[in-house]
Amino acid sequence: MNKDPGTSMTEPLNFQSIILKLQEFWAVHGCLIWQPYYTQVGAGTMNPATFLRVLGPEPWNVGYVEPSVRPDDGRYGENPNRFQQHTQFQVILKPDPGNPVELYIQSLEALGIDPRQHDIRLVEDNWEQPAISAWGLGWEIWLDGQEITQFTYFQQVGGQTLDTVAVEITYGLERILIALRDAPAIWDEPWNDTVTYGEVRQRDEYEHSKYYFEIGDVTRLRMMFDLFEAEAKSCLENGLLVPAHDYVLKCSHTFNVLDTRGAIGVTERQAFFGRMRALARQVAEAYQDQRKELEYPLIKAGSGREAQKETRPALGKFALGPQPFLLEIGVEELPVADLDSALAQLRTRVPALLSELHLEHGVVHVCGTPRRLVVSISDLADRQPDIEEEVKGPPADRAFDSAGNPTRAAEGFARGRGVAVKDLQVRTIDGGQYVVAVVRQTGRPTPRVLLEVLPGLLSSLKFDKSMRWLPPSGLPGQEKDITFARPLRWLVAMLGGTVIPFEYAGLTAGDMSCGLRPYGSPQIKIVSADTYAAGMRKNGILLEVEDRKILIETEAKKLAASLGGEVILPPDLLSEVANLVEAPFPFLGKFETGYLDLPKEVLISVMKKHQRYFPVEKDGKLLPCFIVVRNGDDQGLDLVRSGNEHVVRARFADANFFVREDLKHNLEHFRTRLASLIFQKALGSMLDKSDRIKELVDDLIFMLGLDTDDAVFARRAAHLCKADLATRMVVEMTSLQGIMGAEYARRGGEHSAVAVAIGEQYLPVPRSLPGLAVALADRLDSLTGLFAAGLLPNATKDPFGLRRAALGVVQPLIESDLSLNLGEAIQAAARLQPVSASEETPSQVLDFIIGRLRVSLLDSGYRHDVVDAVLARQGGDPARAVRAIRQLSTWVQRPDWSTILPGYARCVRITRDQTVTFALNPQACREPAEKELLAALQTAEQTPRTSGNVDDFLQAFLPMLPAVNKFFESIMVMTEDQTLRENRLGLLQRIAALADGVADLGRLEGF
Amino acid sequence: MNKDPGTSMTEPLNFQSIILKLQEFWAVHGCLIWQPYYTQVGAGTMNPATFLRVLGPEPWNVGYVEPSVRPDDGRYGENPNRFQQHTQFQVILKPDPGNPVELYIQSLEALGIDPRQHDIRLVEDNWEQPAISAWGLGWEIWLDGQEITQFTYFQQVGGQTLDTVAVEITYGLERILIALRDAPAIWDEPWNDTVTYGEVRQRDEYEHSKYYFEIGDVTRLRMMFDLFEAEAKSCLENGLLVPAHDYVLKCSHTFNVLDTRGAIGVTERQAFFGRMRALARQVAEAYQDQRKELEYPLIKAGSGREAQKETRPALGKFALGPQPFLLEIGVEELPVADLDSALAQLRTRVPALLSELHLEHGVVHVCGTPRRLVVSISDLADRQPDIEEEVKGPPADRAFDSAGNPTRAAEGFARGRGVAVKDLQVRTIDGGQYVVAVVRQTGRPTPRVLLEVLPGLLSSLKFDKSMRWLPPSGLPGQEKDITFARPLRWLVAMLGGTVIPFEYAGLTAGDMSCGLRPYGSPQIKIVSADTYAAGMRKNGILLEVEDRKILIETEAKKLAASLGGEVILPPDLLSEVANLVEAPFPFLGKFETGYLDLPKEVLISVMKKHQRYFPVEKDGKLLPCFIVVRNGDDQGLDLVRSGNEHVVRARFADANFFVREDLKHNLEHFRTRLASLIFQKALGSMLDKSDRIKELVDDLIFMLGLDTDDAVFARRAAHLCKADLATRMVVEMTSLQGIMGAEYARRGGEHSAVAVAIGEQYLPVPRSLPGLAVALADRLDSLTGLFAAGLLPNATKDPFGLRRAALGVVQPLIESDLSLNLGEAIQAAARLQPVSASEETPSQVLDFIIGRLRVSLLDSGYRHDVVDAVLARQGGDPARAVRAIRQLSTWVQRPDWSTILPGYARCVRITRDQTVTFALNPQACREPAEKELLAALQTAEQTPRTSGNVDDFLQAFLPMLPAVNKFFESIMVMTEDQTLRENRLGLLQRIAALADGVADLGRLEGF
Repeated sequence: MNKDPGTSMTEPLNFQSIILKLQEFWAVHGCLIWQPYYTQVGAGTMNPATFLRVLGPEPWNVGYVEPSVRPDDGRYGENPNRFQQHTQFQVILKPDPGNPVELYIQSLEALGIDPRQHDIRLVEDNWEQPAISAWGLGWEIWLDGQEITQFTYFQQVGGQTLDTVAVEITYGLERILIALRDAPAIWDEPWNDTVTYGEVRQRDEYEHSKYYFEIGDVTRLRMMFDLFEAEAKSCLENGLLVPAHDYVLKCSHTFNVLDTRGAIGVTERQAFFGRMRALARQVAEAYQDQRKELEYPLIKAGSGREAQKETRPALGKFALGPQPFLLEIGVEELPVADLDSALAQLRTRVPALLSELHLEHGVVHVCGTPRRLVVSISDLADRQPDIEEEVKGPPADRAFDSAGNPTRAAEGFARGRGVAVKDLQVRTIDGGQYVVAVVRQTGRPTPRVLLEVLPGLLSSLKFDKSMRWLPPSGLPGQEKDITFARPLRWLVAMLGGTVIPFEYAGLTAGDMSCGLRPYGSPQIKIVSADTYAAGMRKNGILLEVEDRKILIETEAKKLAASLGGEVILPPDLLSEVANLVEAPFPFLGKFETGYLDLPKEVLISVMKKHQRYFPVEKDGKLLPCFIVVRNGDDQGLDLVRSGNEHVVRARFADANFFVREDLKHNLEHFRTRLASLIFQKALGSMLDKSDRIKELVDDLIFMLGLDTDDAVFARRAAHLCKADLATRMVVEMTSLQGIMGAEYARRGGEHSAVAVAIGEQYLPVPRSLPGLAVALADRLDSLTGLFAAGLLPNATKDPFGLRRAALGVVQPLIESDLSLNLGEAIQAAARLQPVSASEETPSQVLDFIIGRLRVSLLDSGYRHDVVDAVLARQGGDPARAVRAIRQLSTWVQRPDWSTILPGYARCVRITRDQTVTFALNPQACREPAEKELLAALQTAEQTPRTSGNVDDFLQAFLPMLPAVNKFFESIMVMTEDQTLRENRLGLLQRIAALADGVADLGRLEGF
Repeated sequence: MNKDPGTSMTEPLNFQSIILKLQEFWAVHGCLIWQPYYTQVGAGTMNPATFLRVLGPEPWNVGYVEPSVRPDDGRYGENPNRFQQHTQFQVILKPDPGNPVELYIQSLEALGIDPRQHDIRLVEDNWEQPAISAWGLGWEIWLDGQEITQFTYFQQVGGQTLDTVAVEITYGLERILIALRDAPAIWDEPWNDTVTYGEVRQRDEYEHSKYYFEIGDVTRLRMMFDLFEAEAKSCLENGLLVPAHDYVLKCSHTFNVLDTRGAIGVTERQAFFGRMRALARQVAEAYQDQRKELEYPLIKAGSGREAQKETRPALGKFALGPQPFLLEIGVEELPVADLDSALAQLRTRVPALLSELHLEHGVVHVCGTPRRLVVSISDLADRQPDIEEEVKGPPADRAFDSAGNPTRAAEGFARGRGVAVKDLQVRTIDGGQYVVAVVRQTGRPTPRVLLEVLPGLLSSLKFDKSMRWLPPSGLPGQEKDITFARPLRWLVAMLGGTVIPFEYAGLTAGDMSCGLRPYGSPQIKIVSADTYAAGMRKNGILLEVEDRKILIETEAKKLAASLGGEVILPPDLLSEVANLVEAPFPFLGKFETGYLDLPKEVLISVMKKHQRYFPVEKDGKLLPCFIVVRNGDDQGLDLVRSGNEHVVRARFADANFFVREDLKHNLEHFRTRLASLIFQKALGSMLDKSDRIKELVDDLIFMLGLDTDDAVFARRAAHLCKADLATRMVVEMTSLQGIMGAEYARRGGEHSAVAVAIGEQYLPVPRSLPGLAVALADRLDSLTGLFAAGLLPNATKDPFGLRRAALGVVQPLIESDLSLNLGEAIQAAARLQPVSASEETPSQVLDFIIGRLRVSLLDSGYRHDVVDAVLARQGGDPARAVRAIRQLSTWVQRPDWSTILPGYARCVRITRDQTVTFALNPQACREPAEKELLAALQTAEQTPRTSGNVDDFLQAFLPMLPAVNKFFESIMVMTEDQTLRENRLGLLQRIAALADGVADLGRLEGF
């Protein structure tokens, strides 16, 4: 061992020793040692040793270094641990060896990382790589808050569902070096005994960052992409899969560079992904076929895991009488949502199951942590009760002959039910005489019952995202396709002190549980079901999420108070954090006050979203600290704290870098750069879109009636609204779009109303009128343009988020109660599009928006008939429509509505089918009832009304009701005298027309 | 150690263990462990960890794997050890650690290769990589005949001379695996414990081979090259060196693919290289500047080799009287030519030096091996003799005053010469009186003298290609720029039994020599100069090359005879092999008889050129065996033999593969493929050239007067002549062009005369007329075309070999004594060119050809005046010109030439300046001498003459001589009578005109 360079008892490993150690570790554990790939890849996953070899049923265990190139992570060599090139160590274990997490932790120990002195956490990460149509479930593995590894159970790659799930372990070696040496940054750390990491790589980082961000020629890169794609296709046509894959990788890298150059718009991105995905799928498909044709040469005798299983354990002796029961489902770290969901399911299903089984029991208690789901039942009966049941047989007259002797039918029935013929009885059922067998079911001992039903209980648990992890080779006790949120790793099932050895997913339940990861996951023997909870507590595990939440909240508040501050404890974050650990231990970390200059949103977003830390504030301002919740206790706390602080510092440094770089220019500068950001091929660049928004805002200012000041602000905000998309901070964290625009506008000396409007454009409901104008213009432009370009959403896919955009049009109008003629606005937007919209496009768009409005109104609980009645007339002006719906909703609940509606309906129904509008000649109204109605109509028509107002309409109509009723009682409308008839119809048409522009009352129930 | 996978005492390493071992070995020896590069490279040299880091003075020690991609080595996974991708392990040691070869051999031992059981040989290899403007000197290292490593002392990279020479060691890991396991092929050998090399890589080899040879789209690849080049330039303009270098590498790989696709013509290749070289140079230059600006951060205190040197050893005690002297210069394996040259230089310089030093001595004997140059001198005097010398001083009258007392001048002179004033003497020198000092120089002891002069002896040795290896850091005894053919590693210098500890190149001479490499280069203590030779013999080393040659010849003949055959022992190969080893041990290897189906030229070429084996034949046919000369003895001979046989088998398999692939098509097929092989951008493809040759051959058939049969053969041969350039065998071994064409033509059923002509086209002098016609057409086309395109050779560069082409035009014509009007032929060629030649081009080409003809004639020993005289008139028809030169050479040696030439000269000289040709009116010749001369002229003019024939001309002129002389004696040519004068001039002009088309006699000496 001491021959290894840089290794000694005291000195941590250097960079190259880490690599050599990992190679050695995984070689000893059966991995083939492979090499980095010869074309730029974003991750070791893209290396064919992963991308291709994980496909199909062949075993494959491999480990290799992969210097991974991610252009947009370039920081000019200035960030302590973010680089355009970082070094991965990639491990593939296929099939799952059963203990990959434990193997992984052993490998960390080989590197000198003592899990007891650190906080090693498995944080949910649903890995997805759309460019190669791949996904898997697993975790980021955090060492003291720093992500040092991605750990994934691959489910699909290249669009192919994996026959045999492969475990992918991807170490981030720079992060590990930093952690091992508790270093503030990578640069001064040793690569080997004589040279530092920075001496080897820092200049290169600067140069490549500059190339990717500033120099790479967009036109040439686009041409390269096309050439690579064409070569990939040609390779595929000729069955050359690895060469094809090489070119897919080149496409992918070139795309990444284009993206970093800021040349790819949101919608264009989809097109690029589509092209790459199509190629990746074809490569993967063809590879699967090829391997099949070669008859899977890597499947060799003895390479599987068959025949490792001993004989089934028998049931032991059980005590008599009611016993406590314990079921512990041991699992690799569950995602928070899956943990919640599993507990909820168990809380419903266990009692249901017990009742179905007729098993008497006491309290059913379900609790759990990320690593275990626990069901405990008190006083579970030791066996099922015996049960008598009557089973209906054939009609009595067919069961017995006229002599009263049993027929063959009776004999067959008795035999089938296991009773003697003589014991058959006759009962009257539903008025007929039937033979009946009284079947006695003897209750079975609870252990036997549980042995049978527990597998079903486990398999009944369902998750939003389930995964497979077992090879399809058919281990004992394994169903064909066992899935779970994460792999099951152990089972404890005990009735009293005795094991129920049921089998599931290749596991046999026993009495061995598993302790905390920081303590090395020691085996814990469970003596009996009723001592389990105490045992877990003794081992530091808090089984109840509420206990964990209380502990975190209490401690966090104390910690914050110790600095005179208050912890920001969003409930969702608290719940999440409490379900990330089994033994929460909150502690305080700090960062440099300098970072407080960053926008608060950025800081909070980094702390909460990325790190799950609780920010601390005082008088509404952030303090330079945060609260971390570790899993475990205070061992090695300084190391753990320092690691977490390092991560925050690096992330803030990153944000700082972006903001500083961005502030070198004003928003105008970034606006011009939008020209190279494609919005959508047919619809031009983001600059084009930006220009359209500006023009459309001009129209909207008029339509919405903004005052002079607001008009000025709106125009300016529209001009600058998309500029921040070209800033680095937004390119990096898209979620900060608008927020950064507002910030930069403010810092750039724009009027605060302009800054506010820029920030509000992405809010569902902008508060300011300029913000509203910009948001509407943006959304109407997208809707109209994309509809015109034929890119409509369909039932399952809405890649451009047009549903959200439509809702974003109507909601602000409603909440601001602002009337707007959407039809006109859409026409205005359509006129600005570079693609010529078809005749129907504007009405298509309008219908689409009204459709979204309708769904949202129904969701809000309005009656669908009310909604439909109003939208049919006023859908084109959402605010007015909603006012009308609210009013109409009140009317339809009036007790006298059942008289009002029919009255009006009579006028409508009789005229509805007339294709002509008849003139009303007052002189021709001769009958008193006619005259009376005419007078009532004239009064109603002269009542002042607000356009579209339901109240106004109905208040006007209401006085007419007696006249209407009287009219229909005494007047024959459809008289044979044509003049008279037409005049009467004309009168009624005028009454029906009172609802014009208000509602189509014909759609209401009871009409 | 036994933790390493795949290692045990008996089992050889598997592929990945080789890598892990080498990483470990070099890490322990101070190397930084680096990773393969992320873009396809042909060799680890291209990785910036080599290409950039070897530049400048900074120390750099690095080791890394490099999967190296060489498209044209692809063999579809069929060849046992040739692949489009092989795995290098690259080591850079900078500066030279002093023992890199020994370290390297230790690394082989770490891999389990016992040097005693194998034949490890260092075979000269002057490494050059024109695409990156780099070169170095070193060796291929052969293990049992197989090249397993390239070992190079870099001298220049990216056009930059290296400040500090770096040692590059490049292991070929597949070759090592094969050797370690004595395997017939790589495919079934283990990568790790479970997977074979073939299972991991064979399919990939097939696919990539197919892509590179058949599928890659030439148009797209050319576009990629251009895009990559443009990006490289843009990166350079912005100071981004590593990104620029990345793109240079991409250019290089793309070029390699184009080349493998057969799309690059000979001349186009130069242009591509030029483009890549220019970029590589700029990258390297800029990198050097950058490191300088950064002040060479890797130069750290204590990293150099300073202060390692102890104090100088003092001279010991020497015996009195004449002693034998020994100088052994220990060196890493010298190239054959350098060894010869060094020995020759020592044979001249040592005696000269001894005489200069007045050292008496006996026999001087110089001998040597690749690892040592040995000078031994018998009876070397123990000291120089004393010498008396008179030194001239000032004139006597200035040295002594009138009173005879010495002046200041005398005192100063005496003091300066170290004599007393009173001892000054006066001598008569050159007629003057001078003061003279008699200076006595006391002879010094030989050891002291040698100590001073031996460094100069070593530094006086010069080589065609010298190298530097020492860092410029100024070790004691080291001059600024010490160079040698290969690094000096030890020095032995002894007078009798005592060391002369002179210092040179960082070494101090001692009494320790070094034994045979196969024995581990043990230290050998030399007891005294006279026991040296015997000691070496005892250690198995044959110091005399003649001894080695005799041994090889004797043994080789015996081995061949044992099979009933005869060894083919070309003298140059024998000399070479004898100088490749210190202890020759010939043995026999065999190969499969099946390979004898390959063309004999191919087999011999492989055995001789690639492997330095002696072929064995019987009755003119090859036997399936060969003789290898190993360095050492018979230990492990079976392994060594098997290794060598493996190599030959692989090489033959390779040739077989090509020939087999080629024979799937006929030559017509390959001819069409010439369309994608660019001859030169402006001049089109090789198919275009081929078409031009065909047309030009039509003209030449007529000009050369070929008969009907030959005309048919010539036309057919011209049609097919270049087709073999598109065959794989020729693409692989260009030296087989023509040879393969002939072979394939024959196998394809062409007339044997056609096949012969195809084969002859590349010979300097084709023997058959069809071959001659094709060769001339080819060469005239190249000359005319390239001149027309402006691609003339200059003083130092002739990239298209136009000098050779010109010689190839004249030589065959001369040797066949075939008259041809070159001017017309060139005109015909010019008319066929796709670029419009300028007016002067044809005459430029003609002058160029005549220039080469002139040089070759002068080289043959003809007098330059004779050559010039004839070429001035007949250069356009080489055969005729040479005939004339031969004749004129005889004439100018006739005793009466001194009368003939002046006679003719008188006629010429007097008319030479006349601008008008005057009419000769016989009637106007009135004087007798005039009349006589006129008559003689008429006789001469009527004598039958062959055009251009010197003899005919001079035989015709000779009889006129008396008349000429008489004429000038009696006639006044330049009379005042104009008519008379012009008539006489006209007469003389007619005489001068007799030499028209023969020679310009005015250029002859004595004219």
